[in-house]
Amino acid sequence: MKSDSAKKANGRRESLPVAVLGATGYAGVELLRILARHPVVELTTITSQQHAGKRVGEIYPSLAGKCDLTLEELAPEKIAGRAELVFAALPHETSANAVSALLDKKKRVVDLSADFRLHDPKDYDLWYNGHKAPHLLSQAVYGLTELHREAIAKARLVANPGCYPTGAILGLAPLYSRKIVRGMPVIDAKSGTTGAGRSAAVDLSFSEVNENFKAYNVGVHRHTPEIEQELGELAGERVPVLFAPHLVPMNRGILSTIYVELKSPPGDGELKKLYEEFYRGEPFVRLLPPGQFPQAKDVRGSNDCAIGYRYDARTDRLVVVTALDNLVKGAAGQAVQNMNVMCGWREDEGLRELALVP
Amino acid sequence: MKSDSAKKANGRRESLPVAVLGATGYAGVELLRILARHPVVELTTITSQQHAGKRVGEIYPSLAGKCDLTLEELAPEKIAGRAELVFAALPHETSANAVSALLDKKKRVVDLSADFRLHDPKDYDLWYNGHKAPHLLSQAVYGLTELHREAIAKARLVANPGCYPTGAILGLAPLYSRKIVRGMPVIDAKSGTTGAGRSAAVDLSFSEVNENFKAYNVGVHRHTPEIEQELGELAGERVPVLFAPHLVPMNRGILSTIYVELKSPPGDGELKKLYEEFYRGEPFVRLLPPGQFPQAKDVRGSNDCAIGYRYDARTDRLVVVTALDNLVKGAAGQAVQNMNVMCGWREDEGLRELALVP
Amino acid sequence: MKSDSAKKANGRRESLPVAVLGATGYAGVELLRILARHPVVELTTITSQQHAGKRVGEIYPSLAGKCDLTLEELAPEKIAGRAELVFAALPHETSANAVSALLDKKKRVVDLSADFRLHDPKDYDLWYNGHKAPHLLSQAVYGLTELHREAIAKARLVANPGCYPTGAILGLAPLYSRKIVRGMPVIDAKSGTTGAGRSAAVDLSFSEVNENFKAYNVGVHRHTPEIEQELGELAGERVPVLFAPHLVPMNRGILSTIYVELKSPPGDGELKKLYEEFYRGEPFVRLLPPGQFPQAKDVRGSNDCAIGYRYDARTDRLVVVTALDNLVKGAAGQAVQNMNVMCGWREDEGLRELALVP
Amino acid sequence: MKSDSAKKANGRRESLPVAVLGATGYAGVELLRILARHPVVELTTITSQQHAGKRVGEIYPSLAGKCDLTLEELAPEKIAGRAELVFAALPHETSANAVSALLDKKKRVVDLSADFRLHDPKDYDLWYNGHKAPHLLSQAVYGLTELHREAIAKARLVANPGCYPTGAILGLAPLYSRKIVRGMPVIDAKSGTTGAGRSAAVDLSFSEVNENFKAYNVGVHRHTPEIEQELGELAGERVPVLFAPHLVPMNRGILSTIYVELKSPPGDGELKKLYEEFYRGEPFVRLLPPGQFPQAKDVRGSNDCAIGYRYDARTDRLVVVTALDNLVKGAAGQAVQNMNVMCGWREDEGLRELALVP
Repeated sequence: MKSDSAKKANGRRESLPVAVLGATGYAGVELLRILARHPVVELTTITSQQHAGKRVGEIYPSLAGKCDLTLEELAPEKIAGRAELVFAALPHETSANAVSALLDKKKRVVDLSADFRLHDPKDYDLWYNGHKAPHLLSQAVYGLTELHREAIAKARLVANPGCYPTGAILGLAPLYSRKIVRGMPVIDAKSGTTGAGRSAAVDLSFSEVNENFKAYNVGVHRHTPEIEQELGELAGERVPVLFAPHLVPMNRGILSTIYVELKSPPGDGELKKLYEEFYRGEPFVRLLPPGQFPQAKDVRGSNDCAIGYRYDARTDRLVVVTALDNLVKGAAGQAVQNMNVMCGWREDEGLRELALVP
Repeated sequence: MKSDSAKKANGRRESLPVAVLGATGYAGVELLRILARHPVVELTTITSQQHAGKRVGEIYPSLAGKCDLTLEELAPEKIAGRAELVFAALPHETSANAVSALLDKKKRVVDLSADFRLHDPKDYDLWYNGHKAPHLLSQAVYGLTELHREAIAKARLVANPGCYPTGAILGLAPLYSRKIVRGMPVIDAKSGTTGAGRSAAVDLSFSEVNENFKAYNVGVHRHTPEIEQELGELAGERVPVLFAPHLVPMNRGILSTIYVELKSPPGDGELKKLYEEFYRGEPFVRLLPPGQFPQAKDVRGSNDCAIGYRYDARTDRLVVVTALDNLVKGAAGQAVQNMNVMCGWREDEGLRELALVP
Repeated sequence: MKSDSAKKANGRRESLPVAVLGATGYAGVELLRILARHPVVELTTITSQQHAGKRVGEIYPSLAGKCDLTLEELAPEKIAGRAELVFAALPHETSANAVSALLDKKKRVVDLSADFRLHDPKDYDLWYNGHKAPHLLSQAVYGLTELHREAIAKARLVANPGCYPTGAILGLAPLYSRKIVRGMPVIDAKSGTTGAGRSAAVDLSFSEVNENFKAYNVGVHRHTPEIEQELGELAGERVPVLFAPHLVPMNRGILSTIYVELKSPPGDGELKKLYEEFYRGEPFVRLLPPGQFPQAKDVRGSNDCAIGYRYDARTDRLVVVTALDNLVKGAAGQAVQNMNVMCGWREDEGLRELALVP
Repeated sequence: MKSDSAKKANGRRESLPVAVLGATGYAGVELLRILARHPVVELTTITSQQHAGKRVGEIYPSLAGKCDLTLEELAPEKIAGRAELVFAALPHETSANAVSALLDKKKRVVDLSADFRLHDPKDYDLWYNGHKAPHLLSQAVYGLTELHREAIAKARLVANPGCYPTGAILGLAPLYSRKIVRGMPVIDAKSGTTGAGRSAAVDLSFSEVNENFKAYNVGVHRHTPEIEQELGELAGERVPVLFAPHLVPMNRGILSTIYVELKSPPGDGELKKLYEEFYRGEPFVRLLPPGQFPQAKDVRGSNDCAIGYRYDARTDRLVVVTALDNLVKGAAGQAVQNMNVMCGWREDEGLRELALVP
C-alpha cells in the first residue's frame, strides 16, 4: 500500500495501521478496494480462512499489483501487534471470539457481522441462535453513523449495520423521531445478489437468479429486529415493522420501498422540511425533491444513501424509497465512515468516489 | 400455418380464421408464437403500421419459416373478410376505432389495450385522456377469465386485462369475495421490461436498465383503476388500493407482493380452504402450500399464475405473492384463453406448454 | 403425464414408456419439459441421486401439477422393467455403468454425457481420464442427427453430442464435406451459463458471472476432439481445430463464430448453394441469407440451429456464425430428435415449439 | 468542483480549467466522474445539445451535489475563454468543426470521436463518409498512450483511440514491434452495451439485448482501420486484420480474443520476456502469467488493460486475450491519461481507483 503517492502527499498525518478479517468475502474485498485508496490508513494484515497463504490478487485479480498483501490465518494476537483498528468482516456467529480477543488487547473494532448489532440478548435468542458473548453487547455502538455519530466517535466496538436496515432506518428515522407515524410500516426491500455474500450455492447461481425475481424470508428476516430496535429508540416505544426482502438479478444495490401511514396528512412542505432538517449537513444522505424516487444505479459504488418520498393523497399513504449500494453504505463504506468518525478524520475520507454510472 | 401436422391431426374440427392487429409489438409476437401452434386456429392476417409489407420473419427471425405471413396495413374492412375473431394488440387509445369497425362487421374481438377495460367512462377521464367511444364500454367484458368466464363465453368484445391487474386481482380475489379484508391493501409489483413494450427509449435501453432497479408511477399507475374495479365488484363496495410498480432487469415476469390486513386472524387452514375453493378446477391458477411463495421463473413462458400466501402472526398481516409471465397470462396467453372460452374449446388449447426453466 | 389430452387424441399410437436418468440437472429437466408434451411418450421413471424420494415439482415448481413423478434412485434393473428407451443425463464418467446395464437388458439408450461420443479410446486417455468401458464405444452412434440419421435409426446406443460441437460441426460440415477448407479453423464460441450445469460453485454464482465475460479452457476444452472427429470423418483426413469457449452472462444459448480459410475464393452463390444442398429438408437447420448472422435469442427454447455465413473478400476469410439453444438442440431437444428417429416417428414430434422471444 | 478538499490539499498546484463537450453521453459522463475527483483540474464548462440549460445532476442523479454545473450549448468561442484543455466527446463526424475552432484559439484538445484517429484521408473515404477537415489529420496524435507518449506530451490535438482498438492494439503491439507474426490475426472482440452510446434504439433496449448475444459488423467495423494503422506502423508494413465485434449483455467491458500465427514457435519464456519488456513501467497495463487470461470484471471502472496470452502448441497458435473497461481505458480514462501526459502530471493522476468488483 505504501507505493500510493496520495498517502505520501498526506505525509503530515501518521498512517493508522489497520487489519481486515475475512478479506475475501464481498464486504471484505470492498473494504480492501476502499482502504487501498484511503490516504491515512496503512493496511497491514488481511485474513481469510479459505485462502490463507495466497496473495489476495490471486483471488481478486483486480487487486493484483495494487494490494499485494498475503492472506493470513485469523490469529488475533498477531493481528493486535500489527493493527490499531480492525475491520471484522467475518460470518455471523463467528465474529464474537475474535472481536473479544482484540478488544482485550485494547484494539478498536468495526464489526460488520450481526453479532453486536442488537442490544437485547433476548433478540439473539429470538432471531438468531442465541449469543455466546452477551456481556459484549453493551459495549457495542450501533454504527448507523447518521444516528449515533457521537457515540461512535468514542466507541471501542462499532457494530456496523446490516445492509437492509441501513436503507430502511434512514428512510424512516425522520418520521419516527417526530412521532408522526400511525400503525405499522411495510418495508418492501429489493437487493442485488452480493448481499448474500460470496458463496457456492445453487440458489445463487447465475442460471437460477438471472431472469428471475423472488421474495424470501418475508416477515422472518434477521434484519427485522435491527430496524425495530433503532426505530423504537427514536420513537420511544415499540415499533414493529413488516420487512419483506426480495432478490433482484443485479450485483449491487438495495432499493427499499416503504409504505407508511401518518397520524395526519402532512402539510405543504412539511415532509421536505422534516427530512432536510433531520439530514442537514450529512455528507452521505442525498434527499430528492418531493415526488421523486431514487434508483439503485444512482448510488452504485458510492457511499450515498438517496432518499425520495411521495405522499399519495388519494390513498393517504406516504411512500418512501431509499437506494444504497449494499457493499458500500450497506457494509464496507459505512464501516470506513465509522472509522473516520472514530479517528476524528473527515467523515468522507476515502469515500468521495462518485457512483459508477452506467 | 397450414403445414402444421398437429392441425391436420385435428382435421375433424374446422379451423377458425383469426387476425392479429399490431403483430410486431411484444404482445403481438407472443400471440403469433402461441397461435402458430394452436390446433384449431388459422392465422390469416397480421398487421403492423411500422413494418407493413415485410414478412414477420424479417422482424422476428424466430418466426422465419414458421409463420410466413406478410405484415399488412391495418384495414378493418379487409380483415373482417378474412377473420372471424380478431386479437387487437394495438397501443392504448388507438384501438377503439379498429375495434368499433370490426364489431360492426359482426366479428368477435379480444382487445389487449386498455381501451375497454374500465366500465365507467369517468375512470378514463381520471386515469387516461378520456375515451373516444364510451358507448362501447358497456359491450366489453373484462377478460380475467377466472372471474368472468360465463360472460366471456358470450361476449363479442373481451377487454383483456392488464398484466399487473391480472396478478394483483388473482391474488386478492378470494379475500374480497369473502369480504375478510380490512383497510387498504398495498400492492408492490415488480415487472420485467417487456411490460413496457417494444420501443426505442433511452430509459429502456440495456445500459440503463441493467444493474438497476427502480419504482415508477407509484400510486398513479393506470392499472390502478382496473384493480379497484374488479376487487370492488367482488367486495360489493369501493376498494381503493395503493399500487406501486417497479422495473426489474429481466425480460419477462411479474411478481406482486401484496400486503393485506384481515378483519380477524385467519383460523387454521382457513386461507388454504378459501383459496382452494375459489380456484378449484382452474387450469391456470397454481396454488402453493401456505407459507411458500412463487418465483418469477416458475411460470416463464407458461400461462400459469402461481399464488402463495403467508399469514405473519407477529405483525398480523397477510402477505400474498403472485407470479405470472406478463406476456402470457398477462397478455397473449390470457387472450388465447379467452378465445378458447369464447369458442367453446378446451380452455387450455394451445396453452399447455410448460415454463421454460431455467 | 396421462392427463394430457393431446396424448389421448393420439390414442391410435401406443405410447412408448421412457425413463430419464439424472432428471434434475438442467438437461434432465429440459427433457422433462419436452417429454411431458410429447404425444407418443409416456414418462414412467425419473431418477436423481440428490433428490430421490421427492416429487420433481418440489425441485422445479414449474413442473408441479404437470409432471408429478417422484424421483427415484438410479436402479437400472428396475428401470429396465419400466422403460423401453432411456435418456441418460448423468454426469460425465458416471454414465457408462448404467448404460451398460440397460443395454444388456435390451433397452435403447440416448446418452447425453460425453462417455460414448468419441470412437477412439485413446481420445479418452488424452482428453478425459481414460474410459472404463471402451468395448461399448463401437456400439455407440454419434447423435448429430443431421449427419448420422440412418445409423441413429438403427442404433441401440446414441451418444448425444456436446452443446458446443453441435453448433461448430453444423456450421462447418458442408465445407468439410466438400473439402474446400484450407488450414485450421478457429472456433470462438460463447455459451450461456446453463451449459455448465446446475451446480453450486462460486465461479458460477450470479455475482461473479453477471457483468462479466471470460474465456476458459482455450485450446484444451474437452469438446475439441468431438469436433475434430466429426469434421475429420467428413473430410477424410485429420482436422485439427482451435476451439475457444467463452462464458456469456445469459442462461441459454451458444453463438459460435467460426473463422475459416478456403482453398479458393468462393464463386457467386457457391456457398449459398452448398449450404442449401447440404441441409435441404432438415427440419431444425435454418439457413440465413448470405451476409446475415443469427443471434442467440432467435432460437431460445427451440430445437433450431440457425446458420449464417459471410465471405469477407478484403481479408479472404469466411466467417460462419451458428446459434442454438444449448439445452435444446445442444442437449435435450436433439436427444428427443434422436429418439424420434430411432422410433420412426416424425423427427419434429414434440419439438415444434417456437422460440421464446423476447 | 471547488468544494473538493483533495484539491485544496493540492493547492500548491494551480488548477487547469477544463471543458467537456458532449457531457451527457456515456463517455462524457464518465469524464465528469473522473474529472470531478481529479486533483489538478477545474471543470468549468460542460455542453450538451440535448440537455442544454439543465443541471447535469438532473440527467445523472449520481452527479447531483457533486458536479453541479449547468449544461450549455456548444459555443467554441465561449468555451475557449473558459478552458485551456477541452475534451470533445461528440458524435463521430460532428467533432471536426468544434475542434478546429478550439485549436484556432490555441486550446489543447483531446477528441474522443473517430474524426482524427486515422492519418490517411483515404481511410475516411473508405470506412466513413469522407472527412471534412483533412488538413487537421496531420496535426493529430493517435492517443494510445503506451505507444505514443512522447508525441502526446507535445500534441495540441490528441485523437483518443476507439474502445476496441485499444484492446486489440495493446494485445498485439509487442508481437508486431518484434515482427514475429505470420499471416493475418483474427480479433474476436466482445463488448458491453455502453460502447454503443446512450441512445434510444429498439436494438439496444433491455428486452432485445438481455438473454442475447450477437455478432455485428463482422469484417466491416469502422475500428478496423485504426487497428491496421497502428499495427502497420509497428510492423513497418501493411497489416490487415479480421475484426469481428460482438455484443455482450453487460454494461461495461471489452474482452478481445485474438488468434495469431507466429513465424516460429516461441521459445521458453520468450513471450513473457517480450511482453514484460514492451510494457515495463506502464502504469495501466497489467500482464498476467503465461497461460492465464483476464476477465472483463477484473478491470471494471479502472483504467487498466489486462493482457493474458497462451501459446497452444497442439495447434501452433498464440491466443492473446485483453480486457478493459470500454468507458475508462477505452474512452474517458485514457483521455484523462493523455491529458496528464500533455500537462506533465503523474500519468495516473485521477485514475488510481481500483476496479469495482463484483
